[in-house]
Amino acid sequence: MRSLSHSYYMNMALELAKKASPLVLPNPRVGCVIVKNGIIIGKGYHQKYGEKHAEVLAIEDAIKNGYSLKNATMYVSLEPCCHFGKQPPCTDAIIKSGIKKVVVATKDPNPLVNGKGIQILKQHGVDVVEGILEKEAESVNKEFFKYMKNGIPYIAIKVAQSIDGKIATPSNKRFLFNTDDENIFVHSLRQKYMATLVSVNTVISDNPILNARYGQIVRQPIRVVLDSNLRIPLECNIVKTSDKYSTYIVCSENVNDARKIELLSQKGIEIIFAKSSEDGHLDFFDAFSKLAQQKIVSVLVEGGSFLNFSLLKQRIADYWYSLIFNVFIGGQNTKGVVGAEGFEQFFPKLANTKVTTFKNSTIIEGDISYV
Amino acid sequence: MRSLSHSYYMNMALELAKKASPLVLPNPRVGCVIVKNGIIIGKGYHQKYGEKHAEVLAIEDAIKNGYSLKNATMYVSLEPCCHFGKQPPCTDAIIKSGIKKVVVATKDPNPLVNGKGIQILKQHGVDVVEGILEKEAESVNKEFFKYMKNGIPYIAIKVAQSIDGKIATPSNKRFLFNTDDENIFVHSLRQKYMATLVSVNTVISDNPILNARYGQIVRQPIRVVLDSNLRIPLECNIVKTSDKYSTYIVCSENVNDARKIELLSQKGIEIIFAKSSEDGHLDFFDAFSKLAQQKIVSVLVEGGSFLNFSLLKQRIADYWYSLIFNVFIGGQNTKGVVGAEGFEQFFPKLANTKVTTFKNSTIIEGDISYV
Repeated sequence: MRSLSHSYYMNMALELAKKASPLVLPNPRVGCVIVKNGIIIGKGYHQKYGEKHAEVLAIEDAIKNGYSLKNATMYVSLEPCCHFGKQPPCTDAIIKSGIKKVVVATKDPNPLVNGKGIQILKQHGVDVVEGILEKEAESVNKEFFKYMKNGIPYIAIKVAQSIDGKIATPSNKRFLFNTDDENIFVHSLRQKYMATLVSVNTVISDNPILNARYGQIVRQPIRVVLDSNLRIPLECNIVKTSDKYSTYIVCSENVNDARKIELLSQKGIEIIFAKSSEDGHLDFFDAFSKLAQQKIVSVLVEGGSFLNFSLLKQRIADYWYSLIFNVFIGGQNTKGVVGAEGFEQFFPKLANTKVTTFKNSTIIEGDISYV
Repeated sequence: MRSLSHSYYMNMALELAKKASPLVLPNPRVGCVIVKNGIIIGKGYHQKYGEKHAEVLAIEDAIKNGYSLKNATMYVSLEPCCHFGKQPPCTDAIIKSGIKKVVVATKDPNPLVNGKGIQILKQHGVDVVEGILEKEAESVNKEFFKYMKNGIPYIAIKVAQSIDGKIATPSNKRFLFNTDDENIFVHSLRQKYMATLVSVNTVISDNPILNARYGQIVRQPIRVVLDSNLRIPLECNIVKTSDKYSTYIVCSENVNDARKIELLSQKGIEIIFAKSSEDGHLDFFDAFSKLAQQKIVSVLVEGGSFLNFSLLKQRIADYWYSLIFNVFIGGQNTKGVVGAEGFEQFFPKLANTKVTTFKNSTIIEGDISYV
């Protein structure tokens, strides 16, 4: 039987990886296909954080299908792990199974693995082929790769705006014309990213809950509030629901309101301390680094003018969603999507844009590019 | 032979009407089909202002095809004219031809016709059926119907903006990232509308020519400058090219700079005087009424923040095009698409939106709705 190319099977593994729901977070999405004599004998993809990895599921699938793994070839979209986490190392399972060759799309950027998994396989006589559809595999887990590489979460920004770029009315009132279309879209985004993040100003003005409650609910996001001076009201919805949804507040390391810190902690809220810049704002890079240390791989920022500007200015925002309502607000002084002083040159841009149209709105999304 | 329904043939006439290019302006787009014994014996549509109308072209087509028009039925998307304009009345040609029945989609809103064409046909023994696909026929010529009904041109607004709704940089510099896609789009719009209109501020800051120069050039728009105090620089590109392109300046009737008026008139520019409001700005409604008197059926406004706001506020803008570049400008004080005080309630909306995506930009367009 003529065997198909490595990239044919790797593509199949990638398609399996893409099936993974946000339940795998903070793990990457991984798919695996096992081939023997040109026949696909086992398939699997990681389904939920803490549960079995793609490689083990594919091995079990092959056995269930009545095949021996001896001399089989495994295609896996990410280097197999070699450390004990929530699951035993996949390398052990592969070595034990009798698989002869492992084709890997890309190394795991996690420093606990990062080539060591491949090394262990080789040391045990397993052939390893690397770099098949490497770019595609990194793209499937772009949030995870960015997080591992930069030490801060992958940052997506979502704004709801008028056609003319306003996020509030001239008197700074909220406007929203959400129908089911927009609600389902926004609440699926909240599940896709590990955390939903706002500034304390948004908490004070809008009093949001920031949970996922429209459409299919797979998981609830962690809620993060950036709150330099710990101004969050104790009676706000975020605090009131902190027994139900995981909640972090990032404040300045200069905050010394021990009583408020204790009250919030008692409600199950994690207080994280970050550096503050000279102007009294949080040092965003440090704040996000601290969140990364909490295994927060990706955040969806639902912020205001100033936060959006700061993340673009510091070039740490990765992805953008504009939910553009078919409405005009206007006003020279009305708050816009990107505030503060703006960009006179080196404008941030959107690349690889995708446009979705609803009855009352249009979504423009894309990678933020700083070149 | 079984005859098909009136709406079947009328739809064909409407499809012919839609073929008409902007060369027919300021005339409406009209299509005509002649049917006899279930056979389509002649077709035509109005092709160019001042030349033969659809009805006459269809009659000539039938004759050329060797048919007698005796007892034939004509389907025409707009009531036949009955007055001498650039062409003799179509009613005369129809009566002479021997056509027995005329099916009309909608009355001509032009007060010179408006039912009189139908009346004359009936008086001469021609059967007339009215109101077949009336709404569709009005929609094909929505600019013309609005102009006839309201006594002002159909007003479309086009803006080039960043995702965040800015039309300039923070220091008020122009930004444009036009590629062929955007240029061809904008310059085809300039041909679609009878005139392109800007405020004198745009002339002073951007010094545009406002002609059509990308893509297929069918016609050049009339250029209109709203210039309350006649501040237009004599050396600007609009004035310099006024020998090539028809140009109007609308100024306040209080302007008494006889020398400047004469200098501009010598260059072939038409000066139109309109009322001014108490704040010194032009009374836009009066300005547009005066333009309508010049047979300007439709205008494309390529204006600034203030003009856009004023036209929305006065509820006289009909259609909107946002050419949204995939870029962020930001800045709390940067000029946005819709300026002045903005809308605290009764927000103007876009209906029947259409979205077009290019590599570097997205176009959102639609009917402006004030309900």
